[in-house]
Amino acid sequence: MDVRAAVAYKAGDPLVIETVQLDGPRDGEVLVEIMATGVCHTDAFTLSGDDPEGLFPAILGHEGAGIVRAVGKGVTSVKEGDHVIPLYTPECRECDYCLHPKTNLCQAIRETQGQGLMPDGTSRFSINGEKIHHYMGTSTFSNFTVLPEIAVAKIREDAPFDKVCYIGCGVTTGIGAVIHTAGVEIGSNVVVFGLGGIGLNVIQGARLAGANKIVGVDINPNKRALAEAYGMTHFVNPKEVEGDLVPYLVSLTDGGADYSFDATGNVNVMRDALECCHKGWGESIIIGVAGAGQEISTRPFQLVTGRSWRGTAFGGARGRTDVPKIVDWYMDGKIDIDQMITHVMPLDEINNAFDLMHEGKSIRSVITF
Amino acid sequence: MDVRAAVAYKAGDPLVIETVQLDGPRDGEVLVEIMATGVCHTDAFTLSGDDPEGLFPAILGHEGAGIVRAVGKGVTSVKEGDHVIPLYTPECRECDYCLHPKTNLCQAIRETQGQGLMPDGTSRFSINGEKIHHYMGTSTFSNFTVLPEIAVAKIREDAPFDKVCYIGCGVTTGIGAVIHTAGVEIGSNVVVFGLGGIGLNVIQGARLAGANKIVGVDINPNKRALAEAYGMTHFVNPKEVEGDLVPYLVSLTDGGADYSFDATGNVNVMRDALECCHKGWGESIIIGVAGAGQEISTRPFQLVTGRSWRGTAFGGARGRTDVPKIVDWYMDGKIDIDQMITHVMPLDEINNAFDLMHEGKSIRSVITF
Repeated sequence: MDVRAAVAYKAGDPLVIETVQLDGPRDGEVLVEIMATGVCHTDAFTLSGDDPEGLFPAILGHEGAGIVRAVGKGVTSVKEGDHVIPLYTPECRECDYCLHPKTNLCQAIRETQGQGLMPDGTSRFSINGEKIHHYMGTSTFSNFTVLPEIAVAKIREDAPFDKVCYIGCGVTTGIGAVIHTAGVEIGSNVVVFGLGGIGLNVIQGARLAGANKIVGVDINPNKRALAEAYGMTHFVNPKEVEGDLVPYLVSLTDGGADYSFDATGNVNVMRDALECCHKGWGESIIIGVAGAGQEISTRPFQLVTGRSWRGTAFGGARGRTDVPKIVDWYMDGKIDIDQMITHVMPLDEINNAFDLMHEGKSIRSVITF
Repeated sequence: MDVRAAVAYKAGDPLVIETVQLDGPRDGEVLVEIMATGVCHTDAFTLSGDDPEGLFPAILGHEGAGIVRAVGKGVTSVKEGDHVIPLYTPECRECDYCLHPKTNLCQAIRETQGQGLMPDGTSRFSINGEKIHHYMGTSTFSNFTVLPEIAVAKIREDAPFDKVCYIGCGVTTGIGAVIHTAGVEIGSNVVVFGLGGIGLNVIQGARLAGANKIVGVDINPNKRALAEAYGMTHFVNPKEVEGDLVPYLVSLTDGGADYSFDATGNVNVMRDALECCHKGWGESIIIGVAGAGQEISTRPFQLVTGRSWRGTAFGGARGRTDVPKIVDWYMDGKIDIDQMITHVMPLDEINNAFDLMHEGKSIRSVITF
């Protein structure tokens, strides 16, 4: 079938909107009509050429929501008409990782996904017979896409696509880091570095978990108001702190953060995030993605005296299990998404979404089809 | 009273055995007759002058066992005649740390202990009226010492002092790292770097916890036999591995260690220990103490893909609670100590114990009084 998609032909070039051929779903696959998709920093990272694993040409996009329009042989967990969120971290429920209690990093289709292909080693996308790569197993910058059955989360039908698409990445990553990875307990003091979309979701996750102090750290004072709306109790602008930031944060949190989160991707900030944790038990969770080759460092004494350094991908969430719950939380008013979606536009304008992101003018832009 | 002690007058100099004046126990303190003490690398570290917090003159030693001979006012948990192990990590059961489920780092007397003093800010040791510092709150290189009540663990009376003194540091540190800090589960694959006394205790801790593969890594092949006696299932000599060590260990452990332990203090080894952990859930525990100013590093991707970097002090054990249990395990034959105590000597020969350690000829030397 013919679909309309934004094609990334070359690193650094704008996306090109055009007609692409999409083969139908094979065994264990589903055809999904994408109704909305967010535009995420990770898409921009790959498009920029900085992602060493980036492949071109490709159809980017990994933060979508849509409706199942056809299913391949053997598909049992979803059917035509089901509303779904594509999962770049699938959940096969059969691999060693899915069966391990401590991780969400299903490896069932890891290898082919990394090659920009479906699990059978081929692509469904092409233009005039020339292969176009899938991206993160999702390729949501297209009005139709094909996904493995294990890579879609079935969600309730009354959830608005142009909001819950954000649960496909940012919302789940931030809230999940708090709830699944850190396991923040009621009364904990939390410090969040970076108040972009991920940081805001960490904040609302911490509020949801009943945290006591929720400290947001950002060098941009304009981030303050919205962060407070999401539950931040204390704002710290490192530029306005006299002396070193870490002891300031330790003092502000009565001895250090029970949990800290890096949502910046800056390795120096990651170090501060660890070192502002409470001696004895503080845990620091890295969410942000650092530049290629960059390293984190600290004195081992920081760990020997009881701090833990950890990380999270997709918020530690098991997609088919946890994503539908987060959709429920949104529909029940337990969490907010609306204020974070600052721009909505049609696919034709998707390059504007990247521009807004680079200019720091958006939290999240959503494409509607 | 007059006591006989090994005095460290100056960094780098041998200890001097002589008569020292010891004041009796004050409120909340106990007088302990030390019957045996191990000589540990930490004593040597401080004696060398490399320990930036080392104080002189001092009576070193922190791995003792003995008998309570007198108690100060208000002491309720031990009485004259009780057998005890001094605790350099006390357990007050009242501070924020003791009441927190995730740490053993009681802070009740941290400050004065770091100053080489008893909790009231004075020393009990002197020579001709000149103050001699306490060390790690224990000063077991003396036939009598005074300790806060919260810094002694009461143990059973049939336990031999010249063996269980080692539980005062090395045994608890190694076994505790496995059981208290890591929480190794039955069937886990474990990798231990460094097969000295701590590493051997990590190995027997892992065996006790029901680990599956217990891989020991050491550049000295002579360490192999005893490590196997304690439960090591695979020995790896990095000098004999073709190619990189980390992928070799990942392959040997079917995808990576569930838990790894650094018992070397070498920051490069600490990195290998982290990176040989299993994607998704592997946890690396730093036990070794690195040189002043040294730092650990890795790519944050290692953490984002599910590995955790942690540390431990005194094996995460709460001294008054856990040390008596470890003594029971020894007396019940669940763990061994005897084979690790390679030398026993009187206090007069304590400088030989340091020489043996520096020459790599001892695992643990014990001084008997």
